[in-house]
Amino acid sequence: MANEKIPYKVYLEEHEMPKAWYNVRADMKKKPAPLLNPGTLEPMTAEELGVVFCEDLVQQELDNDTAYFEIPEEIREFYKMYRPSPLVRAYCLEKKLGTPAKIYYKFEGNNTSGSHKLNSAIAQAYYAKKQGLKGVTTETGAGQWGTALSMACAYLDLDCKVYMVKVSYEQKPFRREVMRTYGASVTPSPSDTTEIGKKILAEHPGTNGSLGCAISEAVEVAVSNPGYRYVLGSVLNQVLLHQSVIGLEAKAAFDKIGVKPDMIIGCAGGGSNLGGLISPFMGEKLRGENDYEIIAVEPASCPSFTRGVYAYDFCDTGMVCPLAKMYTLGSDFIPSPNHAGGLRYHGMSPVLSELYDQGLIKATSVEQTAVFEAAEQFARCEGILPAPESSHAIRVAIDEALKCKETGEEKTILFGLTGTGYFDLYAYQKFNDGQMDDYIPTDEELAKYREKLPKVDK
Amino acid sequence: MANEKIPYKVYLEEHEMPKAWYNVRADMKKKPAPLLNPGTLEPMTAEELGVVFCEDLVQQELDNDTAYFEIPEEIREFYKMYRPSPLVRAYCLEKKLGTPAKIYYKFEGNNTSGSHKLNSAIAQAYYAKKQGLKGVTTETGAGQWGTALSMACAYLDLDCKVYMVKVSYEQKPFRREVMRTYGASVTPSPSDTTEIGKKILAEHPGTNGSLGCAISEAVEVAVSNPGYRYVLGSVLNQVLLHQSVIGLEAKAAFDKIGVKPDMIIGCAGGGSNLGGLISPFMGEKLRGENDYEIIAVEPASCPSFTRGVYAYDFCDTGMVCPLAKMYTLGSDFIPSPNHAGGLRYHGMSPVLSELYDQGLIKATSVEQTAVFEAAEQFARCEGILPAPESSHAIRVAIDEALKCKETGEEKTILFGLTGTGYFDLYAYQKFNDGQMDDYIPTDEELAKYREKLPKVDK
Repeated sequence: MANEKIPYKVYLEEHEMPKAWYNVRADMKKKPAPLLNPGTLEPMTAEELGVVFCEDLVQQELDNDTAYFEIPEEIREFYKMYRPSPLVRAYCLEKKLGTPAKIYYKFEGNNTSGSHKLNSAIAQAYYAKKQGLKGVTTETGAGQWGTALSMACAYLDLDCKVYMVKVSYEQKPFRREVMRTYGASVTPSPSDTTEIGKKILAEHPGTNGSLGCAISEAVEVAVSNPGYRYVLGSVLNQVLLHQSVIGLEAKAAFDKIGVKPDMIIGCAGGGSNLGGLISPFMGEKLRGENDYEIIAVEPASCPSFTRGVYAYDFCDTGMVCPLAKMYTLGSDFIPSPNHAGGLRYHGMSPVLSELYDQGLIKATSVEQTAVFEAAEQFARCEGILPAPESSHAIRVAIDEALKCKETGEEKTILFGLTGTGYFDLYAYQKFNDGQMDDYIPTDEELAKYREKLPKVDK
Repeated sequence: MANEKIPYKVYLEEHEMPKAWYNVRADMKKKPAPLLNPGTLEPMTAEELGVVFCEDLVQQELDNDTAYFEIPEEIREFYKMYRPSPLVRAYCLEKKLGTPAKIYYKFEGNNTSGSHKLNSAIAQAYYAKKQGLKGVTTETGAGQWGTALSMACAYLDLDCKVYMVKVSYEQKPFRREVMRTYGASVTPSPSDTTEIGKKILAEHPGTNGSLGCAISEAVEVAVSNPGYRYVLGSVLNQVLLHQSVIGLEAKAAFDKIGVKPDMIIGCAGGGSNLGGLISPFMGEKLRGENDYEIIAVEPASCPSFTRGVYAYDFCDTGMVCPLAKMYTLGSDFIPSPNHAGGLRYHGMSPVLSELYDQGLIKATSVEQTAVFEAAEQFARCEGILPAPESSHAIRVAIDEALKCKETGEEKTILFGLTGTGYFDLYAYQKFNDGQMDDYIPTDEELAKYREKLPKVDK
């Protein structure tokens, strides 16, 4: 059998690693909607964006036409420290499920940040350094992005100020400690170090914080401190561009073994992993060269694709950021406190939102108990303790493989294993103790948040 | 320059992975001393050992002559899930240090157990399964071995009972949770589930436990429950045999790039990593084919090589195990409570002890603050948060590279990076907060423990 020749893990050689990022927007006939200035409702200019973001990143953010951006030599060297990531054939999982499906995953957790976030963190830190800046500010929720950015900044000797959602800061002291080991300063958000933080604390004393609120604080610090800019780990076009390295490597590895996936599955919060994983495959789909079934998986407790609306919305709670057109639940939406892990942003990448709106991506939502069941099953036979985020994709990959078992189809399934769950063991403990529960927001709740969407006629 | 062709990471292809473990005892002219029956002081027979250990493992334990043991197909398949581990060229660290030395490390942390321990765990679990047993028992201190064994047992559907040193059980709840996720039962030791545990609790109420005590409990449970055997993650000959896969892969990777290391550095607690890492190199040294400088690094707070004696001693606190001739501090020795991480066993592998006694290995000890300084420096430029254990080797590798900077020597240094520090962030936090201190036992203290060594005239 040809398949017996496929190794457990396919690694590219260094010289086979991507030398350019792929910009899927270049192949989209209908482009994603532009970011708008919340005051004028006109598209943000490069100059306006340059107050918040680094110059090169602004260009990447606005460029809908250039298909390939060369990866700078210094970033490629950094990538070599932890990339290429393996494309893994999940032989043990297939055997356990008794499925004729062929399951592959692209594993991004083999670096200390524990996730794919490092791919964009090093790029954003590099351009900040190139511009001669002193440092960058950001927010982090579950902590993967903050950790990744701390690592990138330590490598480049850049200052790194992280605003960490308060509840995570308290529940994940070890995440905080990793960031400190990499030299970052970590502040629980909301804090009294910013005007917006003080305002939120005054209005909501005792709040646990949220991503939207931490974003507002980080942006305020960036724009009010000379030599600083703000960086973000998901949602933005530039992030999807950098994360295309995941999909490009996966595609190259598949080509190397002569396999074409039928179905690509990824978890989706802000969209950084899914957007990166699917990019070259989506490019082929957009150009009519190949077809792939692409499935976004989101938590039932934060269902922006499956139950949100496609509209202009604020990216943050403090409304200091530009407006983005995206699938959104409303910028005040915060998932239920019993929601574990990341994937808790109220909106979705504008690129993915547009692709979804065009019917090029499907979406589904899953409940967290079922997600942890899949996580445990995967851990026991594949030897990797997956992050809760990644486990959303595992859940659907397992379900699809079990459908193949019924129908006899030998589908080739690829899913993104974005990271490891070493810092999510509170959630695993809850699951092990049978104390995990599920929460699905009601239609009434969602309607309440939707009412607050800004009125933008575009 | 030829060196520019060497990639950051050298991976073997699957077909290049070792098909047999190497038994360094076969090339030793003077063999390690046999285990003794503590009652008769005669060498333990296969029959006697078979009460505690699985049959195949007893054969491996006693065989001083067979150079190669074929790795069973099922274990080789399991190895393919997380091996080959990369041989990494530490370009970034070299650059940071400004050294002409060429630094390589063999990284064993890319699996959920987070360390090299899985290499022997799957082997021991496999032989238990092959013998038709229901399950295995073991002890764990820092938790790496327990985690590895839980993973292996989950894969093979074997029951797994772990006795975890009480202080670790309480301070590392996440380690415990990983083991539970893999289906193991985890009991804090000493416990009232065993006779020896009850005895120790009665004699030392409120004790924090120790490795020696947890070993006694695990052995008692194994021998008193039909269908169970005891397994151990270090010290034993069989463990060094399985861990030879580390060194065999490293050697094959070096051969592939045409490099020969001058110096090999490994941390040493019970000796599982060091023994595995050096095995094929030591084989060449024993056969007079090549010379290598080999350095064992141990904590100054648990200095069995550098300040212990080479004598027969008990392997456990309860004195239920055979006697082993090894460098030892005495079986009652417990490192100071402020000692972080593993490497806390009172003795050392009999194989390594004999090689050290013959002058074929050097040993040095380092203090933990200096170890964490090295860990942080490494993390910031190599992107991996190292385990405290591994960081002992990093400390000495950095020191040796800095010596090369002074002398201008272009030495090629290999060290073992046994694992990651994700579950050691309490210790990192102490270090980050400037609250870590060092402890070196006094000569008087060590003499006190030495007095209790059994009187064996061999």
